[in-house]
Amino acid sequence: MTELQRPDNRAADELRPLSYELDIAPHASGSLLLGFGKTRVICSAILERKIPGWMRAQGIDGGWITAEYSMLPYSTLDRKNRDINRGKQDGRSIEIQRLIGRSLRAVTDLSLLPGYTLWLDCDVLQADGGTRTASITGAYIAAAIAVNRLIAEGKLEKSPLKTSVAAISAGVWKGQPILDLCYEEDRDASVDANIVMTGEGAFVEYQASGEEAVFSTNEMNALTALASKGIQELSNFQEKIITEAKS
Amino acid sequence: MTELQRPDNRAADELRPLSYELDIAPHASGSLLLGFGKTRVICSAILERKIPGWMRAQGIDGGWITAEYSMLPYSTLDRKNRDINRGKQDGRSIEIQRLIGRSLRAVTDLSLLPGYTLWLDCDVLQADGGTRTASITGAYIAAAIAVNRLIAEGKLEKSPLKTSVAAISAGVWKGQPILDLCYEEDRDASVDANIVMTGEGAFVEYQASGEEAVFSTNEMNALTALASKGIQELSNFQEKIITEAKS
Amino acid sequence: MTELQRPDNRAADELRPLSYELDIAPHASGSLLLGFGKTRVICSAILERKIPGWMRAQGIDGGWITAEYSMLPYSTLDRKNRDINRGKQDGRSIEIQRLIGRSLRAVTDLSLLPGYTLWLDCDVLQADGGTRTASITGAYIAAAIAVNRLIAEGKLEKSPLKTSVAAISAGVWKGQPILDLCYEEDRDASVDANIVMTGEGAFVEYQASGEEAVFSTNEMNALTALASKGIQELSNFQEKIITEAKS
Amino acid sequence: MTELQRPDNRAADELRPLSYELDIAPHASGSLLLGFGKTRVICSAILERKIPGWMRAQGIDGGWITAEYSMLPYSTLDRKNRDINRGKQDGRSIEIQRLIGRSLRAVTDLSLLPGYTLWLDCDVLQADGGTRTASITGAYIAAAIAVNRLIAEGKLEKSPLKTSVAAISAGVWKGQPILDLCYEEDRDASVDANIVMTGEGAFVEYQASGEEAVFSTNEMNALTALASKGIQELSNFQEKIITEAKS
Amino acid sequence: MTELQRPDNRAADELRPLSYELDIAPHASGSLLLGFGKTRVICSAILERKIPGWMRAQGIDGGWITAEYSMLPYSTLDRKNRDINRGKQDGRSIEIQRLIGRSLRAVTDLSLLPGYTLWLDCDVLQADGGTRTASITGAYIAAAIAVNRLIAEGKLEKSPLKTSVAAISAGVWKGQPILDLCYEEDRDASVDANIVMTGEGAFVEYQASGEEAVFSTNEMNALTALASKGIQELSNFQEKIITEAKS
Amino acid sequence: MTELQRPDNRAADELRPLSYELDIAPHASGSLLLGFGKTRVICSAILERKIPGWMRAQGIDGGWITAEYSMLPYSTLDRKNRDINRGKQDGRSIEIQRLIGRSLRAVTDLSLLPGYTLWLDCDVLQADGGTRTASITGAYIAAAIAVNRLIAEGKLEKSPLKTSVAAISAGVWKGQPILDLCYEEDRDASVDANIVMTGEGAFVEYQASGEEAVFSTNEMNALTALASKGIQELSNFQEKIITEAKS
Repeated sequence: MTELQRPDNRAADELRPLSYELDIAPHASGSLLLGFGKTRVICSAILERKIPGWMRAQGIDGGWITAEYSMLPYSTLDRKNRDINRGKQDGRSIEIQRLIGRSLRAVTDLSLLPGYTLWLDCDVLQADGGTRTASITGAYIAAAIAVNRLIAEGKLEKSPLKTSVAAISAGVWKGQPILDLCYEEDRDASVDANIVMTGEGAFVEYQASGEEAVFSTNEMNALTALASKGIQELSNFQEKIITEAKS
Repeated sequence: MTELQRPDNRAADELRPLSYELDIAPHASGSLLLGFGKTRVICSAILERKIPGWMRAQGIDGGWITAEYSMLPYSTLDRKNRDINRGKQDGRSIEIQRLIGRSLRAVTDLSLLPGYTLWLDCDVLQADGGTRTASITGAYIAAAIAVNRLIAEGKLEKSPLKTSVAAISAGVWKGQPILDLCYEEDRDASVDANIVMTGEGAFVEYQASGEEAVFSTNEMNALTALASKGIQELSNFQEKIITEAKS
Repeated sequence: MTELQRPDNRAADELRPLSYELDIAPHASGSLLLGFGKTRVICSAILERKIPGWMRAQGIDGGWITAEYSMLPYSTLDRKNRDINRGKQDGRSIEIQRLIGRSLRAVTDLSLLPGYTLWLDCDVLQADGGTRTASITGAYIAAAIAVNRLIAEGKLEKSPLKTSVAAISAGVWKGQPILDLCYEEDRDASVDANIVMTGEGAFVEYQASGEEAVFSTNEMNALTALASKGIQELSNFQEKIITEAKS
Repeated sequence: MTELQRPDNRAADELRPLSYELDIAPHASGSLLLGFGKTRVICSAILERKIPGWMRAQGIDGGWITAEYSMLPYSTLDRKNRDINRGKQDGRSIEIQRLIGRSLRAVTDLSLLPGYTLWLDCDVLQADGGTRTASITGAYIAAAIAVNRLIAEGKLEKSPLKTSVAAISAGVWKGQPILDLCYEEDRDASVDANIVMTGEGAFVEYQASGEEAVFSTNEMNALTALASKGIQELSNFQEKIITEAKS
Repeated sequence: MTELQRPDNRAADELRPLSYELDIAPHASGSLLLGFGKTRVICSAILERKIPGWMRAQGIDGGWITAEYSMLPYSTLDRKNRDINRGKQDGRSIEIQRLIGRSLRAVTDLSLLPGYTLWLDCDVLQADGGTRTASITGAYIAAAIAVNRLIAEGKLEKSPLKTSVAAISAGVWKGQPILDLCYEEDRDASVDANIVMTGEGAFVEYQASGEEAVFSTNEMNALTALASKGIQELSNFQEKIITEAKS
Repeated sequence: MTELQRPDNRAADELRPLSYELDIAPHASGSLLLGFGKTRVICSAILERKIPGWMRAQGIDGGWITAEYSMLPYSTLDRKNRDINRGKQDGRSIEIQRLIGRSLRAVTDLSLLPGYTLWLDCDVLQADGGTRTASITGAYIAAAIAVNRLIAEGKLEKSPLKTSVAAISAGVWKGQPILDLCYEEDRDASVDANIVMTGEGAFVEYQASGEEAVFSTNEMNALTALASKGIQELSNFQEKIITEAKS
């Protein structure tokens, strides 16, 4: 096996440096600017006393979690036009925000959000690969901080979060499996996986795609192993921030 | 292990009965009505001499494959409103049509479609679970039939399709892994996977989601095994129809 | 008068072969795939327990009938873009679906649909002229089948349909009046009429247009005579299918 | 036959008083405010050096005529919301503007408008029934005035208008055929016809509808006779205004 | 100071000739066609028994005033496309209609419109500069006439209008301050102000912009003085029309 | 005169504390997070080699500056819905982004941006009054930084910025004129002015509105004096940051 030379000299199983700035948006109950290397995403969690129309129409009890994802115009190398000017959201953003929402709902007991919607907003400030995994990882942190504060304020009785959730990418690049791809690696990868797991290591979502290519069971297994390692580190990082926000 | 009783008495690893009607839309180069049990999808393939604006803008050679997916209003138990009346396509449909497009592009040499777009339209006539996997499986059949005819008519020189592609769902239902879920099973499954593979058994896309639940590596492995078996049967079925359409 | 040679050798007053496939969309209360020659339209009837907002706002009793018409992308010789991608329905489709709705309401006692909307969906699978007349003719069949079943299921007390309704085109082509124009004839016709009549031969709608041309009273009378003959045959055909669906 | 008492005491075959104000919109080449009784419509004709995209795409020579119809918010008894606030034009307006366009194209030699679009705008200032017939009648006057001026200015070589065109409504009201229905009559009519004819008495469009009712050949013939008389009067009126505008 | 030569020979502080036609849209409670020279705007006032959703949601008592502004397609030298064809209102129109609404609300006691919305519609028939000031000036006249009639009809108890409001433009053109700019002057002005004042001379809105230029306090003062003079004349004119409409 | 007690104890003519974080969005040529007290706005400047369609159509030389303004969902006390979910931008945002664009164009020689558009994006991270003035002030800083860098990189020859521009609010609150209103003050102010000036103290835009109230010349003069003082401080602040970014 040839030695792998990643653009930033990381080891194949190494995450990019993690960074964060708490309470970037103080009007939200929980918010942070989360960085996976140069990828930086504003994540916020806001509780609204209202449930979606389709829940009311179907008479469903409990609450809901919904996510919105967007790339700010200055987040990309070439300026990204705002969706509003095209009159519709782009398909990739819709796909990602649905993934964020499902990931968070998977670890939530919605019956403990009676009559509420928890809004998770993820706006990419700088994009360098992995914006969806940073969004999921940050959305959980924002949600946990918000929940802790809402409990402290007496607005929620008990945490609806059953466990933690984080996400990381893994892919096959230059024939080798690597963790947490930056934009340059992502662009050239033959396989690209986004894996969402709980703090206990259970899967929440597993999405792997060949990029005009296909992949084998062995490759999937290698990507899964890398992701498990990465998620464990992310879970510890999440725990640390959430604890810090409490104090 | 308790004996599993599926609503239609299928074995855990058994596909629903497959059915098809060739050339359901004769104006398309290739088309069929494909049935996975009660789920029936109209799939068509049409070649257009035009490439997307973004390809022209970026000066990319070759061609493109794009898919569109829609549920007809009478395909669901309660009538489904048309997207045009809401002014935008629903997020789930966007997600699915992006998956169909990626799946077909993964097995295509786009340089052999110079200046062309291959449109794959999938309209669900009746929905009973598995509409996205039936769409991918049928879109490949329509595409292959279209390509064969376009070569025969001298409109394409050589097939851009490098191999075949098919898709099937697998899930964990009542605690056990099963293949090709119908609506009733899908509604109650704790894990739901949609797996896209080539005829040679390589992965193209792997999407597994916990439905307000999580899953283990063992469960993933069991779903993968079921899917591999199903895809093999679907590949044979695809081959048979494509051959029939030639004669 | 020179002998008229139609593309498919039909007599001037001859309908194209009629075909049908019942219950093409089993989730609808009534549905069929109706063929006027190569023109084939999926027609379905679905009853929904809800009336339009404007009826509620105005406090109108009774129910409503509304129709939606669309051409599937593969129905035309060149692929037709979906309305949703343009963000609005095309004007011709709007005009046609309004005509279908008015035609069916003209033969319905809306007070016998209290609190209900009867949705008539017409999706063109293959277009070869006459899609609007096939849609009206098929929508009535679907509606009648649905009404019979809803009465049998105890969901409606009594049929709101006062009589049957069908539609056919007639036009002046190569200087001579002909019935039921196919696409090729329609394209070259100097006058194009779409006539909607009841089974008893009363008019419901009469629309005749000069195609960058004008027409005389004599021509109108000839078209009317052809249409009356055609509608009579269609009414018998409708009756036969509705009876068949009962057994 | 009982004596008919119309709300404004007109005879059954009597038009409402006609009124007009020339050059209501002086930036247009031709414009007028046309009144059919209380119904008043601003009609304008503007020539633009540009043809629609679909004509260019298909390489069609010649020019085009297109019409746009709208009801101003204060034209109706209850304020009518602007289409822009609903995000889409209402179906009735689309139907009407398509009718206006077809009517004018039927009397035009489009090859004499090479590279041009003639825009016919009809905005209803006050609605009291018959807005579509007043629009067609006024659009022709505006077009003829514009054409005369454009020829005088050397912008067009020759008139593309082959003959004149006008429109009038007729209907069955309280069991009797009447001409040029006002709103109150239109609301209660069982049959409603809008008939478009040339100055020579040939038909351009014939649209008759039962309003939740049906009609007979005799009724149609009576409406046709009324309309023919009305159109003749309108043609004379059109001629007078066009001549006046020349001087 | 060189003698100023305006295109129509007006003095620097001279308004264009004012003209009006009362009750141009008789279905509105108040309406007029108001002319500031060649600029002519249809202004109407309609009271609707309904308040905006956001007022109901917030439980605000009283009523609301809202304005809508649009340029008719034939109002400009080159035909202006209708907003509905672009799918959204243009930014300039939105800005203007918000200004009209704020201006009228500033002189209204909204608590005297309980449960009502007063709609002020301004549609430009001919544009020659100053359409927003003519709209505000005319909207007030229409509102005052409507209020007087609604009181007379017993539909309102007391006038909610606390004082009158009018608007005029002033600008720096060829280095000199002038009042009420026509299109040609407006196009070349270095500073453009739109000033809204009450009949008593208090300011309601003051908007001055450099057109790719800047301006001084002295220039602002000169524009203010011109506007004050103009508004006084407009107030007298408004009073005259409102009185005339009463008789 | 009673002593004025502002919520944060500022003097009447005192700005809120200014803060900034340079290069918040490193993919933009110039960017910063600018704070006017708790109001914080991300401002970025990006040069694109492309001019708007209307400039190309009219054959205008030179370049263009355009601004986009948006409030992020978590910027307000109650979560603000994204425009894309309503399908259109809200009127207030459109008004503000037009003001930002005009303000920057007023100090720019567009002929020195040949073939380019300078995009100024302003996204509000936290809103506490004065978001439009912070946006203009920050947009100028981002533009100046970007221009300096683009010149250094040889992408622009010469700065198109003729002078600096900044903006501040002033208003009448509890009967007294104050500078730089926070949300609480803005909500209760009877007069609200937003004043845009160059570093040399010339006016660029002057917008003053009575909030369901009117105002006098004296009040306007007092607000102008406050704003002049504030702008001078902002200009110094701008200069300092731009210089810092150079080093």
